[in-house]
Amino acid sequence: MHAILFDTFGTLVDWRSSLIAQFQALSTELGKELPAERLADRWRSLYKPSMDRVRQGQQPWTILDDLHRVSLHSLLEPFGLSEDESLVTRVTAFWHQLKPWPDVLPGLAELKKHYIIGPLSNANLSLMVNLSKHAGLPWDVVFGTDLFQHYKPDPEVYLGACRLLGLPPGQVTLCAAHNYDLRAARDLGLKTVFVPRPREHGPGQQSDLMAEDDWDWIADDLTHLARQLAGGQRGSA
Amino acid sequence: MHAILFDTFGTLVDWRSSLIAQFQALSTELGKELPAERLADRWRSLYKPSMDRVRQGQQPWTILDDLHRVSLHSLLEPFGLSEDESLVTRVTAFWHQLKPWPDVLPGLAELKKHYIIGPLSNANLSLMVNLSKHAGLPWDVVFGTDLFQHYKPDPEVYLGACRLLGLPPGQVTLCAAHNYDLRAARDLGLKTVFVPRPREHGPGQQSDLMAEDDWDWIADDLTHLARQLAGGQRGSA
Repeated sequence: MHAILFDTFGTLVDWRSSLIAQFQALSTELGKELPAERLADRWRSLYKPSMDRVRQGQQPWTILDDLHRVSLHSLLEPFGLSEDESLVTRVTAFWHQLKPWPDVLPGLAELKKHYIIGPLSNANLSLMVNLSKHAGLPWDVVFGTDLFQHYKPDPEVYLGACRLLGLPPGQVTLCAAHNYDLRAARDLGLKTVFVPRPREHGPGQQSDLMAEDDWDWIADDLTHLARQLAGGQRGSA
Repeated sequence: MHAILFDTFGTLVDWRSSLIAQFQALSTELGKELPAERLADRWRSLYKPSMDRVRQGQQPWTILDDLHRVSLHSLLEPFGLSEDESLVTRVTAFWHQLKPWPDVLPGLAELKKHYIIGPLSNANLSLMVNLSKHAGLPWDVVFGTDLFQHYKPDPEVYLGACRLLGLPPGQVTLCAAHNYDLRAARDLGLKTVFVPRPREHGPGQQSDLMAEDDWDWIADDLTHLARQLAGGQRGSA
Protein backbone atom coordinates (compact mmCIF):
# COMPACT_ATOMS: atom_id res chain seq x y z
CA MET A 1 0.00 0.00 0.00
CA HIS A 2 1.27 3.47 -0.91
CA ALA A 3 2.19 5.73 2.02
CA ILE A 4 1.64 9.47 2.36
CA LEU A 5 3.87 11.21 4.90
CA PHE A 6 3.20 14.71 6.13
CA ASP A 7 5.41 17.49 7.26
CA THR A 8 3.74 18.66 10.44
CA PHE A 9 4.71 22.13 11.77
CA GLY A 10 2.95 24.54 9.42
CA THR A 11 1.66 21.84 7.08
CA LEU A 12 -0.75 20.21 9.55
CA VAL A 13 -0.72 22.39 12.65
CA ASP A 14 -0.96 26.14 13.06
CA TRP A 15 2.01 26.43 15.41
CA ARG A 16 2.02 30.24 15.39
CA SER A 17 -1.55 30.90 16.57
CA SER A 18 -1.28 28.03 19.02
CA LEU A 19 1.94 29.33 20.57
CA ILE A 20 0.56 32.86 20.73
CA ALA A 21 -2.59 31.68 22.53
CA GLN A 22 -0.50 29.69 25.01
CA PHE A 23 1.85 32.62 25.69
CA GLN A 24 -1.15 34.90 26.19
CA ALA A 25 -2.68 32.47 28.69
CA LEU A 26 0.68 32.26 30.49
CA SER A 27 0.91 36.04 30.54
CA THR A 28 -2.48 36.24 32.26
CA GLU A 29 -1.62 33.45 34.67
CA LEU A 30 1.69 35.02 35.73
CA GLY A 31 0.27 38.54 35.78
CA LYS A 32 3.25 39.54 33.65
CA GLU A 33 3.14 41.26 30.28
CA LEU A 34 4.66 38.89 27.72
CA PRO A 35 4.86 39.84 24.01
CA ALA A 36 3.15 36.66 22.82
CA GLU A 37 3.48 37.23 19.07
CA ARG A 38 7.08 38.25 19.26
CA LEU A 39 7.96 35.29 21.47
CA ALA A 40 6.31 32.85 19.04
CA ASP A 41 8.02 34.34 16.01
CA ARG A 42 11.44 34.63 17.63
CA TRP A 43 11.25 31.09 18.99
CA ARG A 44 10.49 29.79 15.52
CA SER A 45 13.25 31.92 14.01
CA LEU A 46 15.77 30.07 16.20
CA TYR A 47 14.51 26.67 14.97
CA LYS A 48 16.40 26.37 11.70
CA PRO A 49 19.73 27.74 12.99
CA SER A 50 19.57 25.34 15.94
CA MET A 51 18.95 22.33 13.66
CA ASP A 52 21.63 23.52 11.27
CA ARG A 53 24.22 23.40 14.06
CA VAL A 54 23.37 19.71 14.47
CA ARG A 55 23.20 19.08 10.71
CA GLN A 56 26.62 20.65 10.21
CA GLY A 57 28.21 18.68 13.02
CA GLN A 58 28.86 21.69 15.29
CA GLN A 59 26.76 19.98 17.93
CA PRO A 60 26.12 16.26 18.57
CA TRP A 61 22.67 14.81 17.88
CA THR A 62 20.09 16.67 19.96
CA ILE A 63 16.31 16.13 19.81
CA LEU A 64 14.04 19.00 18.85
CA ASP A 65 12.48 19.30 22.32
CA ASP A 66 15.97 20.03 23.67
CA LEU A 67 16.77 22.51 20.88
CA HIS A 68 13.47 24.27 21.65
CA ARG A 69 14.35 24.32 25.33
CA VAL A 70 17.75 25.93 24.81
CA SER A 71 16.27 28.56 22.47
CA LEU A 72 13.54 29.26 24.97
CA HIS A 73 16.03 29.98 27.73
CA SER A 74 17.41 32.92 25.81
CA LEU A 75 13.91 34.18 25.00
CA LEU A 76 12.67 34.05 28.59
CA GLU A 77 15.83 35.54 30.10
CA PRO A 78 14.80 39.21 29.62
CA PHE A 79 11.59 38.49 31.52
CA GLY A 80 13.39 36.90 34.47
CA LEU A 81 11.71 33.54 33.76
CA SER A 82 14.62 31.49 32.45
CA GLU A 83 15.76 30.24 35.86
CA ASP A 84 12.47 28.52 36.61
CA GLU A 85 13.20 25.09 35.13
CA SER A 86 9.71 23.73 35.70
CA LEU A 87 8.26 26.71 33.82
CA VAL A 88 10.80 26.22 31.01
CA THR A 89 9.77 22.55 30.78
CA ARG A 90 6.12 23.51 30.66
CA VAL A 91 6.61 26.18 27.99
CA THR A 92 8.79 23.84 25.89
CA ALA A 93 5.76 21.54 25.82
CA PHE A 94 3.71 24.33 24.15
CA TRP A 95 4.95 22.63 20.96
CA HIS A 96 3.12 19.47 22.04
CA GLN A 97 -0.21 21.31 22.02
CA LEU A 98 -0.79 22.81 18.61
CA LYS A 99 -4.06 23.10 16.76
CA PRO A 100 -4.51 21.43 13.37
CA TRP A 101 -5.73 23.53 10.43
CA PRO A 102 -9.49 22.96 9.90
CA ASP A 103 -9.11 20.65 6.88
CA VAL A 104 -6.59 18.33 8.54
CA LEU A 105 -8.76 15.92 10.54
CA PRO A 106 -11.37 15.32 7.80
CA GLY A 107 -8.64 15.15 5.14
CA LEU A 108 -6.53 12.62 7.04
CA ALA A 109 -9.60 10.51 7.87
CA GLU A 110 -10.36 10.24 4.17
CA LEU A 111 -6.76 9.62 3.08
CA LYS A 112 -6.32 6.95 5.79
CA LYS A 113 -8.95 4.81 4.04
CA HIS A 114 -6.68 4.33 1.03
CA TYR A 115 -3.11 4.99 2.17
CA ILE A 116 -0.72 4.40 5.03
CA ILE A 117 -0.44 7.83 6.65
CA GLY A 118 2.19 9.18 9.03
CA PRO A 119 4.08 12.33 9.99
CA LEU A 120 7.61 13.04 8.74
CA SER A 121 8.62 16.19 10.51
CA ASN A 122 11.69 17.31 12.43
CA ALA A 123 10.04 16.52 15.75
CA ASN A 124 11.43 13.80 17.99
CA LEU A 125 9.13 10.80 18.34
CA SER A 126 7.77 11.68 21.79
CA LEU A 127 7.01 15.28 20.76
CA MET A 128 5.15 13.94 17.70
CA VAL A 129 3.25 11.33 19.73
CA ASN A 130 2.13 13.95 22.25
CA LEU A 131 1.27 16.52 19.58
CA SER A 132 -0.68 13.93 17.57
CA LYS A 133 -2.58 12.68 20.59
CA HIS A 134 -3.46 16.25 21.56
CA ALA A 135 -4.60 17.15 18.04
CA GLY A 136 -6.27 13.78 17.34
CA LEU A 137 -4.16 12.95 14.27
CA PRO A 138 -5.09 9.35 13.30
CA TRP A 139 -1.71 7.96 12.21
CA ASP A 140 -0.88 4.48 10.94
CA VAL A 141 2.79 5.05 11.67
CA VAL A 142 4.68 7.76 13.53
CA PHE A 143 8.20 8.82 12.64
CA GLY A 144 10.52 11.04 14.65
CA THR A 145 13.94 12.33 13.65
CA ASP A 146 15.51 10.56 16.64
CA LEU A 147 14.95 7.33 14.67
CA PHE A 148 17.41 8.64 12.09
CA GLN A 149 19.51 11.08 14.14
CA HIS A 150 19.27 13.52 11.26
CA TYR A 151 17.14 16.54 10.50
CA LYS A 152 15.37 17.30 7.23
CA PRO A 153 16.40 18.01 4.56
CA ASP A 154 19.13 15.39 5.19
CA PRO A 155 18.41 12.38 2.93
CA GLU A 156 18.66 9.97 5.88
CA VAL A 157 15.25 11.12 7.13
CA TYR A 158 13.30 10.53 3.90
CA LEU A 159 15.13 7.33 2.97
CA GLY A 160 15.01 6.04 6.54
CA ALA A 161 11.24 6.34 6.57
CA CYS A 162 10.95 4.49 3.24
CA ARG A 163 13.25 1.74 4.53
CA LEU A 164 11.24 1.29 7.74
CA LEU A 165 8.02 1.18 5.71
CA GLY A 166 9.55 -1.46 3.46
CA LEU A 167 8.59 0.68 0.46
CA PRO A 168 10.67 2.04 -2.42
CA PRO A 169 10.73 5.88 -2.49
CA GLY A 170 8.41 5.89 -5.51
CA GLN A 171 5.67 4.39 -3.35
CA VAL A 172 5.96 7.11 -0.74
CA THR A 173 4.57 10.64 -1.08
CA LEU A 174 5.61 13.63 0.99
CA CYS A 175 2.98 16.29 1.60
CA ALA A 176 4.36 19.63 2.77
CA ALA A 177 3.71 23.36 2.77
CA HIS A 178 7.41 24.03 2.22
CA ASN A 179 9.06 23.85 -1.16
CA TYR A 180 12.57 23.05 0.22
CA ASP A 181 11.19 19.90 1.88
CA LEU A 182 9.55 18.69 -1.32
CA ARG A 183 12.71 19.40 -3.30
CA ALA A 184 14.73 17.14 -1.00
CA ALA A 185 12.07 14.41 -1.18
CA ARG A 186 11.78 14.55 -4.98
CA ASP A 187 15.56 14.38 -5.39
CA LEU A 188 15.40 11.00 -3.61
CA GLY A 189 12.55 9.66 -5.71
CA LEU A 190 9.57 10.31 -3.45
CA LYS A 191 6.34 11.69 -4.84
CA THR A 192 5.35 15.20 -3.75
CA VAL A 193 2.26 17.17 -2.75
CA PHE A 194 2.29 20.89 -2.05
CA VAL A 195 -0.42 22.43 0.12
CA PRO A 196 -0.11 26.18 0.63
CA ARG A 197 -0.35 27.49 4.18
CA PRO A 198 -0.06 31.22 3.47
CA ARG A 199 -0.84 32.22 7.07
CA GLU A 200 1.61 29.85 8.76
CA HIS A 201 3.91 32.77 9.59
CA GLY A 202 1.08 35.22 10.16
CA PRO A 203 -0.25 38.03 7.97
CA GLY A 204 3.17 39.11 6.68
CA GLN A 205 4.30 35.75 5.33
CA GLN A 206 6.74 36.07 2.42
CA SER A 207 7.84 32.49 1.69
CA ASP A 208 6.13 29.37 0.39
CA LEU A 209 3.06 31.32 -0.71
CA MET A 210 2.82 29.03 -3.70
CA ALA A 211 4.27 25.94 -5.34
CA GLU A 212 7.70 26.78 -6.74
CA ASP A 213 8.01 23.65 -8.82
CA ASP A 214 5.85 21.22 -10.74
CA TRP A 215 5.07 18.97 -7.77
CA ASP A 216 3.16 15.74 -8.43
CA TRP A 217 0.07 17.21 -6.83
CA ILE A 218 -0.81 20.72 -5.72
CA ALA A 219 -3.84 20.84 -3.46
CA ASP A 220 -5.65 23.67 -1.69
CA ASP A 221 -5.72 21.60 1.48
CA LEU A 222 -5.97 17.97 2.62
CA THR A 223 -9.64 17.48 1.80
CA HIS A 224 -8.90 18.78 -1.69
CA LEU A 225 -5.96 16.37 -1.92
CA ALA A 226 -8.20 13.45 -0.92
CA ARG A 227 -10.65 14.42 -3.66
CA GLN A 228 -7.86 14.80 -6.23
CA LEU A 229 -6.42 11.38 -5.41
CA ALA A 230 -9.87 9.74 -5.43
CA GLY A 231 -10.43 11.26 -8.85
CA GLY A 232 -7.10 9.90 -10.11
CA GLN A 233 -5.89 13.31 -11.25
CA ARG A 234 -2.19 13.56 -12.14
CA GLY A 235 0.18 10.84 -10.86
CA SER A 236 -1.22 7.68 -9.32
CA ALA A 237 -0.41 7.64 -5.63
CA MET B 1 1.07 10.66 30.10
CA HIS B 2 1.57 7.00 31.00
CA ALA B 3 2.04 4.61 28.06
CA ILE B 4 0.72 1.05 27.73
CA LEU B 5 2.58 -1.09 25.19
CA PHE B 6 1.21 -4.38 23.94
CA ASP B 7 2.80 -7.56 22.83
CA THR B 8 0.93 -8.38 19.64
CA PHE B 9 1.16 -11.97 18.32
CA GLY B 10 -1.04 -13.96 20.67
CA THR B 11 -1.77 -11.04 22.98
CA LEU B 12 -3.78 -8.95 20.52
CA VAL B 13 -4.20 -11.09 17.42
CA ASP B 14 -5.18 -14.72 17.00
CA TRP B 15 -2.33 -15.61 14.66
CA ARG B 16 -3.10 -19.35 14.69
CA SER B 17 -6.73 -19.28 13.51
CA SER B 18 -5.86 -16.51 11.05
CA LEU B 19 -2.96 -18.44 9.51
CA ILE B 20 -5.05 -21.63 9.34
CA ALA B 21 -7.88 -19.83 7.55
CA GLN B 22 -5.42 -18.31 5.07
CA PHE B 23 -3.70 -21.66 4.40
CA GLN B 24 -7.12 -23.26 3.88
CA ALA B 25 -8.10 -20.57 1.39
CA LEU B 26 -4.77 -21.04 -0.40
CA SER B 27 -5.31 -24.80 -0.47
CA THR B 28 -8.67 -24.31 -2.18
CA GLU B 29 -7.24 -21.74 -4.58
CA LEU B 30 -4.32 -23.96 -5.62
CA GLY B 31 -6.44 -27.12 -5.66
CA LYS B 32 -3.73 -28.69 -3.55
CA GLU B 33 -4.22 -30.38 -0.17
CA LEU B 34 -2.22 -28.36 2.38
CA PRO B 35 -2.24 -29.32 6.09
CA ALA B 36 -3.27 -25.86 7.29
CA GLU B 37 -3.09 -26.48 11.05
CA ARG B 38 0.25 -28.23 10.87
CA LEU B 39 1.71 -25.52 8.64
CA ALA B 40 0.58 -22.80 11.06
CA ASP B 41 1.95 -24.60 14.10
CA ARG B 42 5.25 -25.57 12.49
CA TRP B 43 5.77 -22.07 11.14
CA ARG B 44 5.28 -20.64 14.61
CA SER B 45 7.55 -23.28 16.12
CA LEU B 46 10.41 -21.98 13.95
CA TYR B 47 9.85 -18.41 15.16
CA LYS B 48 11.74 -18.50 18.47
CA PRO B 49 14.74 -20.53 17.18
CA SER B 50 15.09 -18.15 14.23
CA MET B 51 15.08 -15.08 16.50
CA ASP B 52 17.46 -16.77 18.91
CA ARG B 53 20.02 -17.19 16.15
CA VAL B 54 19.93 -13.40 15.74
CA ARG B 55 19.87 -12.74 19.48
CA GLN B 56 22.91 -14.98 20.02
CA GLY B 57 24.90 -13.39 17.21
CA GLN B 58 24.94 -16.45 14.93
CA GLN B 59 23.23 -14.34 12.29
CA PRO B 60 23.36 -10.58 11.65
CA TRP B 61 20.30 -8.46 12.29
CA THR B 62 17.38 -9.75 10.21
CA ILE B 63 13.80 -8.46 10.33
CA LEU B 64 10.97 -10.81 11.29
CA ASP B 65 9.41 -10.77 7.82
CA ASP B 66 12.68 -12.21 6.48
CA LEU B 67 12.95 -14.80 9.26
CA HIS B 68 9.35 -15.84 8.48
CA ARG B 69 10.22 -16.09 4.82
CA VAL B 70 13.22 -18.34 5.35
CA SER B 71 11.22 -20.64 7.68
CA LEU B 72 8.40 -20.73 5.17
CA HIS B 73 10.71 -21.95 2.41
CA SER B 74 11.47 -25.13 4.34
CA LEU B 75 7.77 -25.63 5.15
CA LEU B 76 6.60 -25.25 1.54
CA GLU B 77 9.38 -27.35 0.07
CA PRO B 78 7.63 -30.75 0.54
CA PHE B 79 4.65 -29.36 -1.38
CA GLY B 80 6.73 -28.19 -4.32
CA LEU B 81 5.78 -24.56 -3.63
CA SER B 82 9.06 -23.15 -2.32
CA GLU B 83 10.42 -22.14 -5.71
CA ASP B 84 7.56 -19.80 -6.48
CA GLU B 85 8.97 -16.59 -5.02
CA SER B 86 5.84 -14.54 -5.58
CA LEU B 87 3.81 -17.16 -3.71
CA VAL B 88 6.37 -17.19 -0.89
CA THR B 89 6.11 -13.40 -0.67
CA ARG B 90 2.35 -13.60 -0.57
CA VAL B 91 2.27 -16.30 2.11
CA THR B 92 4.87 -14.47 4.21
CA ALA B 93 2.38 -11.60 4.27
CA PHE B 94 -0.18 -13.90 5.94
CA TRP B 95 1.35 -12.51 9.14
CA HIS B 96 0.21 -9.03 8.05
CA GLN B 97 -3.42 -10.15 8.05
CA LEU B 98 -4.30 -11.49 11.46
CA LYS B 99 -7.60 -11.12 13.31
CA PRO B 100 -7.69 -9.39 16.69
CA TRP B 101 -9.34 -11.19 19.62
CA PRO B 102 -12.89 -9.86 20.12
CA ASP B 103 -12.06 -7.67 23.16
CA VAL B 104 -9.11 -5.92 21.51
CA LEU B 105 -10.73 -3.12 19.50
CA PRO B 106 -13.18 -2.01 22.22
CA GLY B 107 -10.47 -2.41 24.87
CA LEU B 108 -7.88 -0.35 23.00
CA ALA B 109 -10.45 2.34 22.16
CA GLU B 110 -11.16 2.77 25.88
CA LEU B 111 -7.50 2.64 26.96
CA LYS B 112 -6.53 5.16 24.27
CA LYS B 113 -8.67 7.80 26.02
CA HIS B 114 -6.36 7.79 29.01
CA TYR B 115 -3.01 6.42 27.88
CA ILE B 116 -0.54 6.51 25.03
CA ILE B 117 -0.96 3.09 23.42
CA GLY B 118 1.35 1.23 21.06
CA PRO B 119 2.56 -2.24 20.10
CA LEU B 120 5.87 -3.65 21.37
CA SER B 121 6.22 -6.95 19.59
CA ASN B 122 9.00 -8.68 17.70
CA ALA B 123 7.56 -7.56 14.36
CA ASN B 124 9.47 -5.18 12.14
CA LEU B 125 7.84 -1.79 11.76
CA SER B 126 6.34 -2.36 8.32
CA LEU B 127 4.86 -5.72 9.34
CA MET B 128 3.29 -4.05 12.38
CA VAL B 129 1.99 -1.10 10.35
CA ASN B 130 0.37 -3.43 7.82
CA LEU B 131 -1.01 -5.76 10.48
CA SER B 132 -2.40 -2.84 12.49
CA LYS B 133 -4.02 -1.22 9.48
CA HIS B 134 -5.59 -4.53 8.48
CA ALA B 135 -6.88 -5.17 12.01
CA GLY B 136 -7.84 -1.54 12.72
CA LEU B 137 -5.60 -1.15 15.78
CA PRO B 138 -5.78 2.55 16.75
CA TRP B 139 -2.20 3.23 17.87
CA ASP B 140 -0.69 6.46 19.15
CA VAL B 141 2.80 5.16 18.41
CA VAL B 142 4.09 2.10 16.56
CA PHE B 143 7.32 0.35 17.47
CA GLY B 144 9.14 -2.31 15.47
CA THR B 145 12.23 -4.26 16.48
CA ASP B 146 14.12 -2.84 13.50
CA LEU B 147 14.24 0.43 15.46
CA PHE B 148 16.38 -1.34 18.06
CA GLN B 149 17.94 -4.16 16.02
CA HIS B 150 17.20 -6.49 18.90
CA TYR B 151 14.48 -9.02 19.64
CA LYS B 152 12.59 -9.39 22.91
CA PRO B 153 13.44 -10.32 25.58
CA ASP B 154 16.64 -8.31 24.96
CA PRO B 155 16.55 -5.21 27.23
CA GLU B 156 17.30 -2.92 24.27
CA VAL B 157 13.73 -3.33 23.02
CA TYR B 158 11.93 -2.37 26.24
CA LEU B 159 14.36 0.40 27.17
CA GLY B 160 14.53 1.67 23.60
CA ALA B 161 10.77 2.15 23.56
CA CYS B 162 10.87 4.02 26.88
CA ARG B 163 13.67 6.25 25.62
CA LEU B 164 11.83 7.12 22.39
CA LEU B 165 8.69 7.86 24.40
CA GLY B 166 10.71 10.15 26.67
CA LEU B 167 9.32 8.25 29.67
CA PRO B 168 11.07 6.49 32.54
CA PRO B 169 10.33 2.71 32.61
CA GLY B 170 8.05 3.18 35.63
CA GLN B 171 5.68 5.22 33.46
CA VAL B 172 5.43 2.50 30.83
CA THR B 173 3.34 -0.68 31.18
CA LEU B 174 3.75 -3.82 29.10
CA CYS B 175 0.63 -5.87 28.50
CA ALA B 176 1.32 -9.44 27.33
CA ALA B 177 -0.09 -12.96 27.33
CA HIS B 178 3.41 -14.36 27.89
CA ASN B 179 5.05 -14.51 31.28
CA TYR B 180 8.63 -14.45 29.90
CA ASP B 181 7.96 -11.10 28.24
CA LEU B 182 6.58 -9.57 31.43
CA ARG B 183 9.52 -10.91 33.44
CA ALA B 184 11.97 -9.12 31.14
CA ALA B 185 9.93 -5.91 31.31
CA ARG B 186 9.59 -5.99 35.10
CA ASP B 187 13.33 -6.57 35.54
CA LEU B 188 13.87 -3.25 33.76
CA GLY B 189 11.34 -1.33 35.85
CA LEU B 190 8.30 -1.37 33.56
CA LYS B 191 4.83 -2.07 34.96
CA THR B 192 3.17 -5.29 33.85
CA VAL B 193 -0.26 -6.59 32.86
CA PHE B 194 -0.98 -10.25 32.13
CA VAL B 195 -3.95 -11.20 29.95
CA PRO B 196 -4.41 -14.93 29.44
CA ARG B 197 -4.90 -16.18 25.89
CA PRO B 198 -5.40 -19.89 26.60
CA ARG B 199 -6.34 -20.71 23.00
CA GLU B 200 -3.44 -18.89 21.35
CA HIS B 201 -1.78 -22.21 20.50
CA GLY B 202 -5.04 -24.07 19.93
CA PRO B 203 -6.95 -26.50 22.12
CA GLY B 204 -3.83 -28.28 23.43
CA GLN B 205 -2.03 -25.20 24.78
CA GLN B 206 0.27 -26.01 27.70
CA SER B 207 2.08 -22.75 28.41
CA ASP B 208 1.04 -19.33 29.71
CA LEU B 209 -2.36 -20.61 30.80
CA MET B 210 -2.12 -18.32 33.79
CA ALA B 211 -0.08 -15.59 35.42
CA GLU B 212 3.09 -17.10 36.85
CA ASP B 213 4.02 -14.11 38.94
CA ASP B 214 2.40 -11.30 40.85
CA TRP B 215 2.11 -8.94 37.88
CA ASP B 216 0.91 -5.38 38.52
CA TRP B 217 -2.41 -6.19 36.91
CA ILE B 218 -4.00 -9.43 35.79
CA ALA B 219 -6.98 -8.94 33.52
CA ASP B 220 -9.33 -11.34 31.75
CA ASP B 221 -8.96 -9.29 28.57
CA LEU B 222 -8.45 -5.69 27.43
CA THR B 223 -11.95 -4.46 28.24
CA HIS B 224 -11.50 -5.88 31.74
CA LEU B 225 -8.13 -4.13 31.96
CA ALA B 226 -9.72 -0.82 30.96
CA ARG B 227 -12.32 -1.26 33.72
CA GLN B 228 -9.67 -2.20 36.28
CA LEU B 229 -7.56 0.86 35.45
CA ALA B 230 -10.60 3.14 35.48
CA GLY B 231 -11.49 1.78 38.91
CA GLY B 232 -7.96 2.46 40.16
CA GLN B 233 -7.44 -1.13 41.31
CA ARG B 234 -3.86 -2.10 42.22
CA GLY B 235 -1.03 0.14 40.98
CA SER B 236 -1.73 3.49 39.40
CA ALA B 237 -0.95 3.32 35.69
